[in-house]
Amino acid sequence: MTSIRVGLLGIGTVGAGTFNVLKRNQAEIGRRAGRDIRITVVADLDTERARAIVGEDVEVVSDARQVIARPDVDVVIELIGGYGIAKTLVLGAIEAGKHVVTANKALLAVHGTEIFAAAARKGVIVAYEAAVAGGIPIIKALREGLAANRINWVAGIINGTTNFILSEMRDKGLDFATVLKEAQQLGYAEADPTFDIEGVDAAHKITLMSAIAFGIPVQFDKAYIEGITQLHRPDIRYAEQLGYRIKLLGIAKRTERGIELRVHPSLVPTKRLIASVEGAMNAVVVHGDAVGTTLYYGQGAGAEPTASAVIADLVDIARLQGADVTHQVPALAFQSSTLSAASTDLPVLPMSEITTSYYLRARVLDEAGVLARITSILADAGISVDALLQREADEVSEFNQESEANAALPQTDLIILTHDSREGTLNAALEQIQQLPSVLAPIVRIRKEELN
Amino acid sequence: MTSIRVGLLGIGTVGAGTFNVLKRNQAEIGRRAGRDIRITVVADLDTERARAIVGEDVEVVSDARQVIARPDVDVVIELIGGYGIAKTLVLGAIEAGKHVVTANKALLAVHGTEIFAAAARKGVIVAYEAAVAGGIPIIKALREGLAANRINWVAGIINGTTNFILSEMRDKGLDFATVLKEAQQLGYAEADPTFDIEGVDAAHKITLMSAIAFGIPVQFDKAYIEGITQLHRPDIRYAEQLGYRIKLLGIAKRTERGIELRVHPSLVPTKRLIASVEGAMNAVVVHGDAVGTTLYYGQGAGAEPTASAVIADLVDIARLQGADVTHQVPALAFQSSTLSAASTDLPVLPMSEITTSYYLRARVLDEAGVLARITSILADAGISVDALLQREADEVSEFNQESEANAALPQTDLIILTHDSREGTLNAALEQIQQLPSVLAPIVRIRKEELN
Repeated sequence: MTSIRVGLLGIGTVGAGTFNVLKRNQAEIGRRAGRDIRITVVADLDTERARAIVGEDVEVVSDARQVIARPDVDVVIELIGGYGIAKTLVLGAIEAGKHVVTANKALLAVHGTEIFAAAARKGVIVAYEAAVAGGIPIIKALREGLAANRINWVAGIINGTTNFILSEMRDKGLDFATVLKEAQQLGYAEADPTFDIEGVDAAHKITLMSAIAFGIPVQFDKAYIEGITQLHRPDIRYAEQLGYRIKLLGIAKRTERGIELRVHPSLVPTKRLIASVEGAMNAVVVHGDAVGTTLYYGQGAGAEPTASAVIADLVDIARLQGADVTHQVPALAFQSSTLSAASTDLPVLPMSEITTSYYLRARVLDEAGVLARITSILADAGISVDALLQREADEVSEFNQESEANAALPQTDLIILTHDSREGTLNAALEQIQQLPSVLAPIVRIRKEELN
Repeated sequence: MTSIRVGLLGIGTVGAGTFNVLKRNQAEIGRRAGRDIRITVVADLDTERARAIVGEDVEVVSDARQVIARPDVDVVIELIGGYGIAKTLVLGAIEAGKHVVTANKALLAVHGTEIFAAAARKGVIVAYEAAVAGGIPIIKALREGLAANRINWVAGIINGTTNFILSEMRDKGLDFATVLKEAQQLGYAEADPTFDIEGVDAAHKITLMSAIAFGIPVQFDKAYIEGITQLHRPDIRYAEQLGYRIKLLGIAKRTERGIELRVHPSLVPTKRLIASVEGAMNAVVVHGDAVGTTLYYGQGAGAEPTASAVIADLVDIARLQGADVTHQVPALAFQSSTLSAASTDLPVLPMSEITTSYYLRARVLDEAGVLARITSILADAGISVDALLQREADEVSEFNQESEANAALPQTDLIILTHDSREGTLNAALEQIQQLPSVLAPIVRIRKEELN
């Protein structure tokens, strides 16, 4: 059978990894795919560096537009990143009738609807296993492996940088800023880490998974995003004492009124497998009505793990090359004709409408009646308390960062775990509690997910 | 598009689960598959029970041969089990040009080569996601999701019964016989639990995964199989003290000289994610050269988790129905024409040729020089010691089950962890050690896997 000719746009870390893995495992990959998969042309602005990686047998050009125009290219791999030129090239490749493989989560989370529609019109595949959780075949699991299920929720540690930082903060008792610097030195965080630490990267990924899981369009603009920059050491420690670990989770949940789509730090029971996912590793938990809870774990970034996903997509495409489009797996798991109706049935809910449980920490004056006043406000709002922890002043003192003005007064930390509540209701109650004269500092509020 | 008409052979627990999930999620599954998937006829000896499950809209027959002969059936689901009639029916269905979905690991592990060859000749698919690890889409992950990788090893907790028993033995400090009885009462173990507790079921599953991972034929007859019936409480406790947990693992490993294919209790570092897989849950760890370590976790048995896998196979088949065979994923991951050559290059190694590390426990007389004599025998054989634990007589006494004859003498337990050794070499050294007059009981030997 003829080989599949691939044009690679952008040969940075992942591009080089893809080239190298494809070359190293060429025979084995060919035995699986039933045909040879070959990168025949590479486009990169730095043609010298590109040439050094691919050697003499592969053509190197500086202009990516040349690649998508060529009739002797069957598949285009887009590894340039970002929303600008990458979007033009992906749409151009589709228009030229080429299949596209991309790791560009930002592009798909924001412009996916347009891109997938263009691909459907031309009958080509846009594959993006590498866009979520690196080498973990989670897109395939969600789209195909769990196709029998009504997916109830997806929750994942899908950003290695933040998971590394949280692991280090907990292990070593360090604060956020210190660990961030360490992560940058080790190469786990970028010089400008905003996309990672503010949760944007995770939000791109959970947006894609929400679409696949529930058959809704990608709606990144409706995702709630909160990063880890406001996390404090005492909360990590209190959480542990209560049997929880704090992780930055991307969560997509189906409820009767709509879809919850959110990224934020979450308390997770220590006994859940996902709580033990440490360092830069990723894991995604998927709950389906038939299969129950499943978990997928592995490296979420890096040259070769990401290359593993890119090449898996190439193998799928190689197998389907020449087949009628009806044999393709739909880009967002559900046949595209059935997507739009679902989006009106299943709107993404505003945060005030989500339901979850909470960890609350109030720095309060150590005097009689405070606890009663706080719990009665919660009770009046219909919010029931699951667990309560009061820490004495001396144990509190070492954490005394946020309330230096009040350092002279006898004070204590009051930690409350709530049962499930509507977030709007909880916010209203917190506003009332915050007004109490005995409450000395802004109340810390972290969401809690039982994931069972 | 026309719907896919499915004939179901055997409507026991999993069959009923499959029928119910397909019915409950019909709309959602149809939106994914692009066509309707419908069980149109069910064969079961107990036609009354079958009728009670499927209602009036589905035909019920008592003779499965009728189903495979029908021109209005596109796919046959075989859920009868065993090697006998199931084999005849599967081959018959293939011969009649029907795709087959089966959960029958025993049948495929023993007769897979014949069955897959017949399917290849007829151009039909034999799908078996449900045969390994229930609802976890591990076959899909191995065959497709990790297609870029040279797979180095696969190690899994792939039998829920034995994992439940081991979890209980450790948690509650109970012995094997007691927990087995409990497991039988709870329905986690069958009345005749031999296939589970002796490791046969796990061996069927790891045999299938070894074929997919390495491109070799299924070779169940070459698998080494050791169950959990000989495990003793003190070893579970000593392992914990050394930072390990004992799990029944199915292991398939590629080495330069061939394939290791084995099922036996194994010490696993407590810090590995798989060590925290408790109760009847399953998990499979796959190591690929590009992706590194990945893990897949979920329910390995039960009506609906298994149904989830059966239906995922149906969806794959529904998508490929009508496509040329070249578009199919090969049954054993690699194109069948490339399988046989690989089997001679990669023979399954005899156990004496495997390389791993070991946990050894010797009940010895508490006298000077014993340790020196044992370690010098190991050193002479080139086996180096990784860790050593000596337990004093009083702590030992409560475990004094195996050596009642010597109970009066002062004795101690000597626990040794070795570095990697060839099993043949280790066995020879153990024979020598066993001859020492100070060694009072048969030496306990449990293999240890670092899984990193």
